[in-house]
Amino acid sequence: MSSSDQKNHTLGEISRRFGGRLIGDPDTRISRVATLESAGPEAIAFLANERYRNQLQTTRAAAVIVGETASELTGLPRIVCPDPYAYFALVSGLLNPLRPAQPGLQPSAVIDATAVVAGDAEVGPLVVIGKNSIVGARSRIGAGCVIGSDVVLGEDALLHANVTVYDGSVVGSRVILHSGVVIGADGFGFALSEERWLKVPQIGRVVIGNDVEIGANTTVDRGAIEDTVIEDGVKLDNQIQIAHNVRIGAHTAIAACVGIAGSTKIGRHCRIGGMSGITGHLTIADRVEISAHTLITKSIEKPGAYTGVYPFDTNREWRTNAAQLRHLGELAARVRALEQMLKKQNGRKS
Amino acid sequence: MSSSDQKNHTLGEISRRFGGRLIGDPDTRISRVATLESAGPEAIAFLANERYRNQLQTTRAAAVIVGETASELTGLPRIVCPDPYAYFALVSGLLNPLRPAQPGLQPSAVIDATAVVAGDAEVGPLVVIGKNSIVGARSRIGAGCVIGSDVVLGEDALLHANVTVYDGSVVGSRVILHSGVVIGADGFGFALSEERWLKVPQIGRVVIGNDVEIGANTTVDRGAIEDTVIEDGVKLDNQIQIAHNVRIGAHTAIAACVGIAGSTKIGRHCRIGGMSGITGHLTIADRVEISAHTLITKSIEKPGAYTGVYPFDTNREWRTNAAQLRHLGELAARVRALEQMLKKQNGRKS
Amino acid sequence: MSSSDQKNHTLGEISRRFGGRLIGDPDTRISRVATLESAGPEAIAFLANERYRNQLQTTRAAAVIVGETASELTGLPRIVCPDPYAYFALVSGLLNPLRPAQPGLQPSAVIDATAVVAGDAEVGPLVVIGKNSIVGARSRIGAGCVIGSDVVLGEDALLHANVTVYDGSVVGSRVILHSGVVIGADGFGFALSEERWLKVPQIGRVVIGNDVEIGANTTVDRGAIEDTVIEDGVKLDNQIQIAHNVRIGAHTAIAACVGIAGSTKIGRHCRIGGMSGITGHLTIADRVEISAHTLITKSIEKPGAYTGVYPFDTNREWRTNAAQLRHLGELAARVRALEQMLKKQNGRKS
Repeated sequence: MSSSDQKNHTLGEISRRFGGRLIGDPDTRISRVATLESAGPEAIAFLANERYRNQLQTTRAAAVIVGETASELTGLPRIVCPDPYAYFALVSGLLNPLRPAQPGLQPSAVIDATAVVAGDAEVGPLVVIGKNSIVGARSRIGAGCVIGSDVVLGEDALLHANVTVYDGSVVGSRVILHSGVVIGADGFGFALSEERWLKVPQIGRVVIGNDVEIGANTTVDRGAIEDTVIEDGVKLDNQIQIAHNVRIGAHTAIAACVGIAGSTKIGRHCRIGGMSGITGHLTIADRVEISAHTLITKSIEKPGAYTGVYPFDTNREWRTNAAQLRHLGELAARVRALEQMLKKQNGRKS
Repeated sequence: MSSSDQKNHTLGEISRRFGGRLIGDPDTRISRVATLESAGPEAIAFLANERYRNQLQTTRAAAVIVGETASELTGLPRIVCPDPYAYFALVSGLLNPLRPAQPGLQPSAVIDATAVVAGDAEVGPLVVIGKNSIVGARSRIGAGCVIGSDVVLGEDALLHANVTVYDGSVVGSRVILHSGVVIGADGFGFALSEERWLKVPQIGRVVIGNDVEIGANTTVDRGAIEDTVIEDGVKLDNQIQIAHNVRIGAHTAIAACVGIAGSTKIGRHCRIGGMSGITGHLTIADRVEISAHTLITKSIEKPGAYTGVYPFDTNREWRTNAAQLRHLGELAARVRALEQMLKKQNGRKS
Repeated sequence: MSSSDQKNHTLGEISRRFGGRLIGDPDTRISRVATLESAGPEAIAFLANERYRNQLQTTRAAAVIVGETASELTGLPRIVCPDPYAYFALVSGLLNPLRPAQPGLQPSAVIDATAVVAGDAEVGPLVVIGKNSIVGARSRIGAGCVIGSDVVLGEDALLHANVTVYDGSVVGSRVILHSGVVIGADGFGFALSEERWLKVPQIGRVVIGNDVEIGANTTVDRGAIEDTVIEDGVKLDNQIQIAHNVRIGAHTAIAACVGIAGSTKIGRHCRIGGMSGITGHLTIADRVEISAHTLITKSIEKPGAYTGVYPFDTNREWRTNAAQLRHLGELAARVRALEQMLKKQNGRKS
């Protein structure tokens, strides 16, 4: 986004709109956001991490957003609020709004005659939309997207370039799908018969709620018989794999490269760290946090933080220690033997 | 797939076609498959997992497929057979057949004049097919696919939208490639020279056998000099990475997000769990099973199950225990010292 | 690449061009590279791994590239040099050069009137190029690529089919991007506010240096506020995820399926094994090597090799040993207790 796209506001307008306590000149002009370190004229920055506290002294920002504890650490015009990062998100959203749809269909798009595209939706070049599909008001379909048949796409949705949506998928309003996302490919369903894999037709759908964002090259498979469901407000990072029949509860956030195996149900307000996996047919409670690079192999019934990471070390130290892992059962047995021996000795002595 | 696409059969016809013991009214009409829980009129469901046994009492399915041990647990019309899930796969395949090709080339496709596309193949909108490539009988190429030059694609193949096949790749008959699949990109081959990476041209091909299915966004790299080979009947889930010169034996199934490093040879009838990795230049025997999230670092010569998963725990417990991992070598030494001390003591005493 | 594309040279020409000591007939014709095992007439092969030493006796290559220690193990015409693999890379690059651009724009491409495409660049079919974007001399844009607005693409770049480059990205000269690559998608930036995720606009860019190669389906996210940077000569394999604000130092090579979390800085000349992860906001020194399937959770200040892999075993052995992991803290405490008990005993005795 070039700076010409950005709006121009005063600090006073911002604090009237989003709240917080304004200290300093309300007429301070704000036209962009920045980090404390890189900020220049007309920029607003924020302090959310105590680590960067010293930068308050040196920043050239026009204004800053700070928490109560830092409210007197700077003489700059500032907004004091309980959550500077969330406040910053609001201000940045104001200054950097999503580009609205430019209504119309590019002539190079191939749109089936039975598809229903809202008059104020934007369909980019070389897009394909299949039979009976519906594109809601003000939605934007980026170049090269392929929308199958019988797809329902809500209002104000944004599909970046080269997204693929298979037949029958349902995508809510204000959903953002990044490039390379594949919605509705077949789940991995095969039955073994005489040493050959028989394909089990995947006839469920993918149903995605409102306000969901899905990162680049993430895949969400259609259900085997029933549907794969992504509830409202879920945020999925890049290169995540969601298998068939999975349900992800509302407002759960999943970091990049996670894999969720078939039929697993994940609760609401969970946070799952990057490169983690959850095996199939499990149930994960609401408000569970899973560390990065952890494999969850059993259902989790209680909220809380769960981890299964092998701690890294220098290769040399790792070799020494990891070699013992293959003898841990034996080591535990040897400790037990020592305990019994000593107990017996002590028994003899007493 | 809408229900209008589905065929309509009787239970009698089904049992004549696929075998099994029919109990109940052979004229029961079957038009769809369902789970025991969601089934309604004209639906056939199955019981393959004892966990769902109780649902036999409450299901509203028109008929069910069950194993011998469950044959008398329901009064519904039923087919009794040794493997209800495989039987279900056959029935579902009958009721939900792949849509046949609609012969013809969409006018928006860009097909080189030297390409040979079978007259009864279907080429979707905005497809690109390069020089001298061949598309076999009844194959379907989805919208937005890019097929390079000198590609051979067999009969009855199905490429979903937005698949990319590089020059020179060979893809067998009845192969299914899902959206975002990339076949034949360069392998990761570089030689270090004076601290710079020199590209080693990747001049091998990818050769894919018959009846292979490859999931969304999976990548199979071309060979460095010779070929990368995926044998007949292999099933690859989504987001798998197959490096250059790998060979995957027939009928092996690999779950999502697995990475196989260069020149590794995997046997036939293996099963590899999601998010696992196999390092380069290894040989894995036939009928090996690898657990999810496991890294295989040595060749495996015997069939069997192999695992290398760090067990997850609450973050709190994990912290306590994982801290010891960096001292395991030392802990083992201390146990050894204790054993020797006690041995010496006991020696003195005796 | 068909053999007709390959050039024809003599061994003498090759050794004059790339150095090394030539033994045997300098007029030996060389038209292709091969492995020792598969080589035939006019093929040059190499020995870089002692494991394949015996193949020197049986190879049908016309000539071989060997190191000093193997210089007398064959009577074939040969080039003796310090690094046979790097030498081979040079020879193969000579015999298998990248196809040069075929200047011109395919009529099916949709190129904004304000875009500036070099006259000798090649733009494939069904490519989209947005406003104000620049394509440098002799670059090739493969079929189906979508280049956004305000993108700068250097000279002699090669974008394979179906690559997506978001608005504002900067890509250097001689960069190779493989199919399915997504450059510049939004980073995963959300602030929590009243249990809802607020999107933090991602307004930084992706800046990619010269001589970078990026493998199929790899994603590089744009910066949140400032830029994500991939320095010169970096090589990224397939299906890697680079999060917002990451910086990857020059000439670092990263194997497939790695994830680098937000704001992490990686040094120069590092090598990162496949399926590894690095958590956010870390700094990794120059010349660090990270093993496959390892999670790095702290900054690394010293060059060297680092590992955090759980060693695999048969499932049976793994079960026995892994069960102890949940009691390691306790086991260490029991050993400490034994030590104290013995110390006390020995104290009493002395």
